[in-house]
This record gives sequence, structure tokens and C-alpha cells, in this order.
Amino acid sequence: VTNETVLAELVAIVGEPHVLVGEAAQPYLTDWRNRFTGKALAVVRPESTQQVADVVRACVEANIPVVAQGGNTGLCGGATPDASGRSIVLLTTRLNRIREIDTANDTMTVEAGCILQMVQESAREAGRLFPLSLGAEGSCTIGGNIATNAGGTAVLRYGNMRDLTLGLEVVDAAGQVWHGLRGLRKDNTGYDLRDLYAGSEGTLGIITAATIKLFPQPVARCTAMLALPSVEAAVALLARARAGFGAALTGYELMAGRCMQLVTHHYPHLRLPFEAASAEAPWFGLLEISDSESEQHARDRFEAVLGEAIECGEADDAVVAENITQSRALWHLRESITLAEAESGKSIKHDISLPISRIAEFVALADARLQERFPGVVNITFGHLGDGNLHYNVGSSEGFSGSDLVAKQDDIYALVHDTVSAMGGSISAEHGIGQLKLDELGRYKSAQEIKVMTLVKKALDPRCLLNPGKVLQAY
Amino acid sequence: VTNETVLAELVAIVGEPHVLVGEAAQPYLTDWRNRFTGKALAVVRPESTQQVADVVRACVEANIPVVAQGGNTGLCGGATPDASGRSIVLLTTRLNRIREIDTANDTMTVEAGCILQMVQESAREAGRLFPLSLGAEGSCTIGGNIATNAGGTAVLRYGNMRDLTLGLEVVDAAGQVWHGLRGLRKDNTGYDLRDLYAGSEGTLGIITAATIKLFPQPVARCTAMLALPSVEAAVALLARARAGFGAALTGYELMAGRCMQLVTHHYPHLRLPFEAASAEAPWFGLLEISDSESEQHARDRFEAVLGEAIECGEADDAVVAENITQSRALWHLRESITLAEAESGKSIKHDISLPISRIAEFVALADARLQERFPGVVNITFGHLGDGNLHYNVGSSEGFSGSDLVAKQDDIYALVHDTVSAMGGSISAEHGIGQLKLDELGRYKSAQEIKVMTLVKKALDPRCLLNPGKVLQAY
Repeated sequence: VTNETVLAELVAIVGEPHVLVGEAAQPYLTDWRNRFTGKALAVVRPESTQQVADVVRACVEANIPVVAQGGNTGLCGGATPDASGRSIVLLTTRLNRIREIDTANDTMTVEAGCILQMVQESAREAGRLFPLSLGAEGSCTIGGNIATNAGGTAVLRYGNMRDLTLGLEVVDAAGQVWHGLRGLRKDNTGYDLRDLYAGSEGTLGIITAATIKLFPQPVARCTAMLALPSVEAAVALLARARAGFGAALTGYELMAGRCMQLVTHHYPHLRLPFEAASAEAPWFGLLEISDSESEQHARDRFEAVLGEAIECGEADDAVVAENITQSRALWHLRESITLAEAESGKSIKHDISLPISRIAEFVALADARLQERFPGVVNITFGHLGDGNLHYNVGSSEGFSGSDLVAKQDDIYALVHDTVSAMGGSISAEHGIGQLKLDELGRYKSAQEIKVMTLVKKALDPRCLLNPGKVLQAY
Repeated sequence: VTNETVLAELVAIVGEPHVLVGEAAQPYLTDWRNRFTGKALAVVRPESTQQVADVVRACVEANIPVVAQGGNTGLCGGATPDASGRSIVLLTTRLNRIREIDTANDTMTVEAGCILQMVQESAREAGRLFPLSLGAEGSCTIGGNIATNAGGTAVLRYGNMRDLTLGLEVVDAAGQVWHGLRGLRKDNTGYDLRDLYAGSEGTLGIITAATIKLFPQPVARCTAMLALPSVEAAVALLARARAGFGAALTGYELMAGRCMQLVTHHYPHLRLPFEAASAEAPWFGLLEISDSESEQHARDRFEAVLGEAIECGEADDAVVAENITQSRALWHLRESITLAEAESGKSIKHDISLPISRIAEFVALADARLQERFPGVVNITFGHLGDGNLHYNVGSSEGFSGSDLVAKQDDIYALVHDTVSAMGGSISAEHGIGQLKLDELGRYKSAQEIKVMTLVKKALDPRCLLNPGKVLQAY
């Protein structure tokens, strides 16, 4: 089969305007952080599950790999094709219908290309909450969220994307469709294919639609920013918050003092809500609760639990947002870290998780080891403490330049990931593997786990045509 | 390899007292409901993961199937060997150590043979809650709970067993050990093997240990019994309770009036807490909330939300337990249904789930269809309404005898399951497939799903030696 024949088939399936080549294809061949660039025979935009199935079948027959892509907001290059130019990129963005909202069942069935923010808004219009929330929500797709098991800032209360997914529709490597769009909370009829496809980054099948969970809108939300003396204190406060707020505890973010310094330095219009000493705290926390009762009740609970925390020395100071504007301002400080970090130059990023009981020990040990081996590097540590997930980033300083950082990148990765791994942690908490962490995965996963994963991959994609070279080595 | 050689090898691995044959093996060859009986070469009781691996390796070399068994409390014959006598039963009950309790991480690492109630008690002694709760908790094992993805009465708040499991240790069909005992809330490093093994009923690997989630003990629990006019009203009240209690809503059980009549008839010392008309209600609800604040707060919330429900006609009456003794008495009514049902003669049991939006329609339609085809049968319907899970059981009466019921069993199954399936429901919500529903699964699962499940099974157990003939057909 020649490339021309295949392209003609693809045009016949999706229509000429939706088979992009040359210049038109370029935006989809580089990831948004400009870390990975690939080539492709074409970028193909099916508009229905049937078209996805037909595209996959045409490609499989011609031995052409298929790389699924949603909003192209991934952080590990999982949706960027390799350099061979053999693949097609299958863009899911035209699969953008909301098929059903069932408020009595608290579920919503959406196609893979729906933008996360649109899903959140549709749920809100129906009087419900879809709780997944993350920085890229204005452009990421729900299919990509599922394929990478996205996390974000409300995992503590509502779980990862996998936990929010009840059913899936998936096109497999043979171009056949699994109609698994179930809206059931309990279903023990066989293997958990849903959770196998979720998080598999397009390497086992292509997700075309999903039935996802909705929740009642909380009556009130309450946000507080805390000045914290240490990571130990932050962890002790987490236990207090879990017991004191129960499942009302929605988010608990931790930020090193340096993160807030970078934010207020690069964005002088943003201000910490603390005066004097508290503004210089070594750590800050951002705590959010959702209340099903009333604004007043939420604030009373906040004051009771945070009051105790301050008395016990777990927090030095706390500011509770008076209204939604103040709450947004607090979240905006947290959300500005990544951009402020970029403004301040090159940094080496780690998306790690640890047992919460070992977080403090990890930070102390990894900080010390880094200073010993790379004197002068600075730590830009923040993350979702309630989930044990740190973005443990390493930046440059006058004593350790950005180019030194680049030169030592692999050694820094190794030092941090070795330390994480020895403490029973994960080298990718919420961003996945893609191509960025493929080699790292081989280093830190047991041979047994790689063996079983490979058996599954080969069973479901014997010719390695679904996103080859992502998550696992191509074969 | 002769049977004698293999038995000698097994004795060498686990010691003579732990290879049971003849009379000693009998208790493990029949399921506790006496529905399935099989034969086995021996019942083998390893005491460590290493011994499990060695036993599996010895069996695989000799082409002997391995049927894992925990507390033998399953409802679908999943732990009973077939009639060939070729298999061994691998009993996990000596794997009964609690390896670690990490209160700062809110996790616990337990071996597969630990009894659920012991796990609950150990968590409580550590000041934590392990929330899985079900009728067989005094004898079922945590390994069996995971292998069947057990449900129970607190799924609404805390999820199924799968949701409560963070990490696993598993012996695979090659006798190799996967050390996947992670205590992480976020981990996106590859395929979700944990959820694949969970719920696979010993057909993909043998679970030897697990790291499970703990929760803070609630400060208060509050239970109410409701007299309900209809299933529609019960569903409307569920939505109100989800919004009004938020994640404090822990359980919501639904029981047909007939269930309570059976209970009070067969156990006259048990009494409904209602007077007069309310005691004759067509449906009853049992609602529980957990509160992280105070007993008083829980009761106030209960009164506010249930008051509204009564005003809107969603409930006719409500009795809130004044104390833990009263709460237990209410739960005891619910938990006595299964025994009262057994006292009243043969019944045909269905463990189904539906989208909650279709529960009322299902009950009306299935009831009507049953009366049309089998006039005189009675419905004994109860279940976990909050999860969309009904135990939709069908009993005999003067007009339709127990022997008629037995004669029509397959037709009744077919009628109920056809109705469930047409409404997007599941024919096994929480009990699994085992051997009981193997044929039913083939009837209601799509060919595509059976194909993918079989690909996974053959990849992980190519010679079909792990619990053959359960979940999927043997090959």
C-alpha cells in the first residue's frame, strides 16, 4: 500500500478538509512546551466513533501507527508522534458532543474531544459539579484527561480522572468499538477494562467517549491560606484537617516560601495576604473545603479547625477568604507558580508522589543531597500535599547557572528519582510517562511489572501500532 | 509428573500438615451456600508469599490448575474447584499478618488471608476507620474482598474494595511475584495492573497482600429509618440527601415492605420502629450519615434534610436512632432480610445494578413482566439504592410454589437479566461471576468485551491454570 493510497482512504473516511498535511499539520507535531517534535504522514480529524474506527482500520491494514491527540497539553510528549513520519496523528477534537446529561443518575456522557472547561460548564448549567480542575482546563480534552488519568487540585476529595470515570467507549487496535458507556456505580462483570484503558496514553486503545460522574454543587466553598513553619507541620495539619473536615476537605496545596517569592517578584500586582513575619514563612498552605450546609457553617468549621492548628503550632498564621474574589486571589497565587518559575529561567521538573508519612523526610533528604552534589541549585517545591504529590522542581541561581542545570539535567533527575524510589514513591504522580519518562520507567519499575505491562500491550496491540514508543518501548 | 510427585513437592514447600487431602480437604470443596461442589488433588495452605510462588510454580510445571480460596464466603462459586479433581485449592488463610499500619499515610498493609473484621478492628485500634462492611465480614478475607471487588453498605461514601486498594502483591501464572505494595494516592507510571487484578477472581494472578486506605473515624454516625411511598420517592430523596449531606452521606439502603414483613414474621422479637400506617409502607429506607463535627450536628442535619423530604412527600415518616443501640437495631432489620428470606423458602436471587435514574422504571417493569409470565411469584426487593444496586429476589407464594420456582429458575433469570440489560444495567453488581454467572456473562457482554477480556487472560495465563472456568470459559 502506498502512502498515497492510504491518504486517499483517509480522505474518503473523514473528508478532505480533515486530512491535514504540510503546514496545516505542523501545530500538532510539536508539544506545547516545545520539548518534542515529530513527523506524521497526516493529521486526521474524524468526527464520529465510526470514523475513528474506520481510520484505525485503514491504518492498521497499511501498517501505519496511530497517535491519538486531544488538546495537545500533555507534559510528557505522549501525543507527539516520533520522527519517522510513518504515523498519523488522530485528532479527537471534532468528537465534541455532549451526548447525555442524566442528573438523576449524576452522570454525563461526553465525547473524547470535549474541552474540560466546557464539560465543567455544562455540568454547572445542569446544576451539578464536574470536579476535575487543572491548569490546562481551557484547552485540554476529556479524552486526554482519561488517557493520562489527570489529577489536579481536587483529587483529595473527588479522586483522579480514573475515579471520575464510570464508562468508556474505545476503538481498539483492530478498529473495533467497545461500547462500554455504563453509568453504573457497581458492576462486577469481568475484568476492569475501563481502568486499563484509562491512563494507558493511547497505547491500548483510543477513547472516543466516556460516561463520567457528576456531584451536587456544594452550597459553599471556603479557602484559607496558611503560613507554615515546616513540612512536618504541614503534614500534621493535613491529618487534623482530614479528621476535622471529613470529606468536606477538597484541596490542600503546599508551596515553599520561595515559590511565593517568585510569584510576587515577577508579578508585583499579586500580593501575599500576610503581614510581616508570616509573609516570610518557609512554607505556605492553601486549604479548601466544600460545604453542603451554608457559608457560615463552612467558615465556623474553618475557624474551629484552623484555630486548633495554630494553637498546636502546626500553622503560624491563617487567612480565610471572605468571599469568592478573595478565594480566587488565593488560588491565583498558587496557579501563578509555574509561570513565575518559567520567568525565572530554566528549571528541572519532577512530578513525584510519596507516602504522606515520608514527605517531610524526602524534602529534607533530597534538598540536602542536591546541595551536596550541585551546590547553589535552588528548590522550587510545591504540590498537592493531600495526595502526597509534589512538583519538586530544581532551579538555577547566581551560584549555579541555567546552563549548568541543563548540563546536569540527567544527574539531577537520577538523584531525585533515586531518592523517591527508595522511599516507595512514584516518578510520575499525575503527568504520565509519554516519551519523556520512558527510559526512567525502565529504570524504576520492576522487571516483573514491565513484563506484565508488555504482555498486556502485546495482547491488545500485537503490531504495536497504537502510539508506539510511549509508556513502553516499541517492538 | 505423577500426582504423587507433585504432592511430595507441595509437602516439601508448605509442610505435611498444610497439604490436606481426603476428609480434611472436604470443607474447602463446597461453597458455603452448598450450591457448588468440586474435587481437588489437595488443599494447600502456604504461609508466605514465597510459598505461594513456589506452590504455583510447582503446579504450573505439572500442568495443575490452582484455585485460590479465602474465607469461602463467595456467592458465585468462584473459589470452588471444578469436578475434574485435577486442581489444587490454594488456601490463603495462613497469610494472615498485618504487615504495617501507617497512620500518617492513612494506609495499612495486610496479607490476603486476614479476616475483614480483624482488619476493621486493627484499624480502629490505630484510631482509624477501614470502611468496607458486609454480611460475611466475620469470615471473609481481604484477599477475597479484593479478588471479587466486594461492595457492601458503605460504598456510597467510601467506594468499592477496588477504590479502597492502593497497592497489591500478586503471584502470577509463572509463579513470579509482583511487589506492587504502594501506598500512593497518585501514581501514573504505566498500566493500572492493580485494578486489573482486583475483581479478576483469581483468574489472572493470586493476591497475597494489599496496601489499603484508612480514614479518620467519624466523630458521630447517625442512622434513620424512613417509610417511603414509592421507589420514585426513594430516588428523589437520594438526590436530596446527596446534595444536603454531601460526602457525609454514608449509606442509603432500600427495602420493600415485604422484606420487613418477612423479617418481623420470622423473627418476632424484631420490631419496626413505626406505628400504624407507616409500618405498612410499601418501601423503607435506611439512611446513614457520618459526621466529622459532633453528634448534635449530625442530628440537626438529619432533621433539616429529612424534614424537607417529608414536607415534599418524598418520605411519609422518619425515625432517627437516638443512640448506637437504636442504630444497630435499625441495621439489624436490614441485615436480617437474607436469613428471613431463606426461612420463607426457595428464592431466585439477582444482584443487579442500574443507572439510578432508571431504578423505579425497572422495578415497575420487571415486577409486571414477572406477574404476567409467572403469576403468583412475589418480589423480595432490597439493596444499596445509593449505588444503584438491587438484590432483586423472586420468591414463592401459595399461588406459585417453591418447586415451580426451581423449575422456572432459568426463565426467571432470563426475564430479569434481559430487562436489566436493556436498561443499561449490570447482571452482577457486587458478587462477581465465578461459575454461577459464566453463561450469563456470555449472553449479556458484548463479543468485543469478551474478546478483549480473553486476550488479557490468555496473555497473563496462557495455559489457563489460574482458576480455569471462572469469569471466562476455560481453554
